[in-house]
Amino acid sequence: MTGAAPASFTADDYEARRERAARQAADAGLAGLLVAPGPDLVWLTGYTPTAVTERLTLLVLTAGRDPVLVVPALEAPDAERALGAGALTLYDWTDGKDPYAATAALLDADGRFGISDNAWAMHLLGLQKALPGTSYASLTEVLPMLRAVKDAAELELLAAAGAAADAAFEEIRQVAFAGRRETDVAADLAALLRRFGHSQVDFTIVASGPNGANPHHEIGDRVIERGDMVVLDFGGLKDGYGSDTSRTVHVGEPTDEERRVHDLVREAQEAGFRAVRPGAACQDVDRAARAVIADAGYGEYFIHRTGHGIGVTTHEPPYMIEGEEQPLVPGMCFSVEPGVYLPGRFGVRIEDIVTVTEDGGRRLNNTEREMVTVD
Amino acid sequence: MTGAAPASFTADDYEARRERAARQAADAGLAGLLVAPGPDLVWLTGYTPTAVTERLTLLVLTAGRDPVLVVPALEAPDAERALGAGALTLYDWTDGKDPYAATAALLDADGRFGISDNAWAMHLLGLQKALPGTSYASLTEVLPMLRAVKDAAELELLAAAGAAADAAFEEIRQVAFAGRRETDVAADLAALLRRFGHSQVDFTIVASGPNGANPHHEIGDRVIERGDMVVLDFGGLKDGYGSDTSRTVHVGEPTDEERRVHDLVREAQEAGFRAVRPGAACQDVDRAARAVIADAGYGEYFIHRTGHGIGVTTHEPPYMIEGEEQPLVPGMCFSVEPGVYLPGRFGVRIEDIVTVTEDGGRRLNNTEREMVTVD
Repeated sequence: MTGAAPASFTADDYEARRERAARQAADAGLAGLLVAPGPDLVWLTGYTPTAVTERLTLLVLTAGRDPVLVVPALEAPDAERALGAGALTLYDWTDGKDPYAATAALLDADGRFGISDNAWAMHLLGLQKALPGTSYASLTEVLPMLRAVKDAAELELLAAAGAAADAAFEEIRQVAFAGRRETDVAADLAALLRRFGHSQVDFTIVASGPNGANPHHEIGDRVIERGDMVVLDFGGLKDGYGSDTSRTVHVGEPTDEERRVHDLVREAQEAGFRAVRPGAACQDVDRAARAVIADAGYGEYFIHRTGHGIGVTTHEPPYMIEGEEQPLVPGMCFSVEPGVYLPGRFGVRIEDIVTVTEDGGRRLNNTEREMVTVD
Repeated sequence: MTGAAPASFTADDYEARRERAARQAADAGLAGLLVAPGPDLVWLTGYTPTAVTERLTLLVLTAGRDPVLVVPALEAPDAERALGAGALTLYDWTDGKDPYAATAALLDADGRFGISDNAWAMHLLGLQKALPGTSYASLTEVLPMLRAVKDAAELELLAAAGAAADAAFEEIRQVAFAGRRETDVAADLAALLRRFGHSQVDFTIVASGPNGANPHHEIGDRVIERGDMVVLDFGGLKDGYGSDTSRTVHVGEPTDEERRVHDLVREAQEAGFRAVRPGAACQDVDRAARAVIADAGYGEYFIHRTGHGIGVTTHEPPYMIEGEEQPLVPGMCFSVEPGVYLPGRFGVRIEDIVTVTEDGGRRLNNTEREMVTVD
């Protein structure tokens, strides 16, 4: 919120990422990476097609060769203008041609490739058919941490996105909740996120009273009442990097039980945060938060993982979940967001984005975590 | 623009579509269809997850069995509320479980399945690994015409979307073009589409002067000048169904050459339209439009296919392209949009959505096709 220009990347940054990715792929025994439009491609090239269609766009990163961007001829001029794509060899193809045959010519016919999770199945099938000797694995499976460790400019952008989301919370807690629909408050939240610099709003969850007990309730027509707990969970992209924070507010004075459950979730969130340090496993963060809730007898009401990574998307690896033994590395960024959901009654979730530092964790969200009451 | 409530579907409509799809799949020798979030799923169930993530959501349609919607547990309540999903068996899975093993239990271990084009590669790979004996083909390859023939309610929605896009054109031709940036006119167009009922704007191409010669130029900072040709190509979704229309306007009086090229494209568009009738092949529409342009010596400057289908998306089968022998069937809807692109100079494109009727074609866009001049 300083008004300074956002951190930005250079063509060299993108080239360095591609080189790092190609090296990691080779280390993982892969013949290369096949990168589809979406977060992987934007991270590696700065290029986002204006629309993702049935026309194949694919970055081919193979060890020891220059990267090639396969792109529909119509879209080549746009691709060329992308900051990190100007230096790439473009392989453009026209309607009516077979893009899989064209791509196949670039690939080791017996190789194993990592392919973007969100590449279209039709494109994977096209490649499997064109080169029956190849095999594939999803990028998240073979290189789950490809985008996980953020560099300094990325951290600056994530911190700015978090600060913008915090500013939105500081404003939303001033508005009237009682008597308005969840959709109205959600619209306010979306407008605030945009006002504080978000170009894209991914979610503005306003889950009041019993709706709060469904952790994926987004918004509905329910009129918020005095006495409601209201889970607010909102985020999106600002300058290409994500925000995601949750606070649970109370309309008027809470009951003792509501306060007790909120305190419990706050303690669990604090415990999760305190478990963040280099070398700890992702599952340690989940276990630390979950233990607090389980010890208080509410374990069965915490029905989701404790967190997810964030970067050029609002949900990505690493995941803070039982079974994830990936060690934390300085520069990783992820949510710590335990919750308790009492069916038919209310829910509480508290969420901050946390980044791993050399000696622990640093929160990128810093609004009040004690229960806030609203009107 | 009558103000009447939009056409709408019933749970029975969705069930009928699923039965038709399952039958077509069996006829095509498939063991079933695997339908991912996106246009196929919304067409078959009315359900769109609030966010498409790495969590598997998949409709399993298998011959002779009740359809099953595999869905993350967190999202099950939302899925249950979808108009066409209430009657479905939901198979929900929780974080940390293997959704592919769960889905595999529903599938013939040696079967061949059609899978949504846009299903994520990671989900396809998960299924291929869980059931090595299965094989897959993209839905568009095996059942390209699954959504191509629209029913009466769908046609009504497409006509309403077309009328809204036409209304936007009637307004935009009144605004000043000269001296404003392409981005400004595009913003006007987007606002007009929304004002006339679009909930989603997919593209608002404003390609002026030499930018018009790149058929996929979207918008830029170029200031539109007197004497420019300007290609306008815009559309999106209104009540869940698509619009897509192009007109090329001239800022002030055109030169003889500009008028000649515009006339040529208009004649080509008319020829494409007149080729639309039941039983004609898709490629006949392309050939009819292309012949007009080729005969005039501009063949090399018409560098894309003549058209694409439209429905719950703005680009889908059938494609009006050389080599596509699919016969036209009453109820199909697609664009007829020839163009001429003179590199470094200007481009012209004229596009209407056309639906196949019993005795020919009917245009769903009806604004002036003679060259319109603007200020």
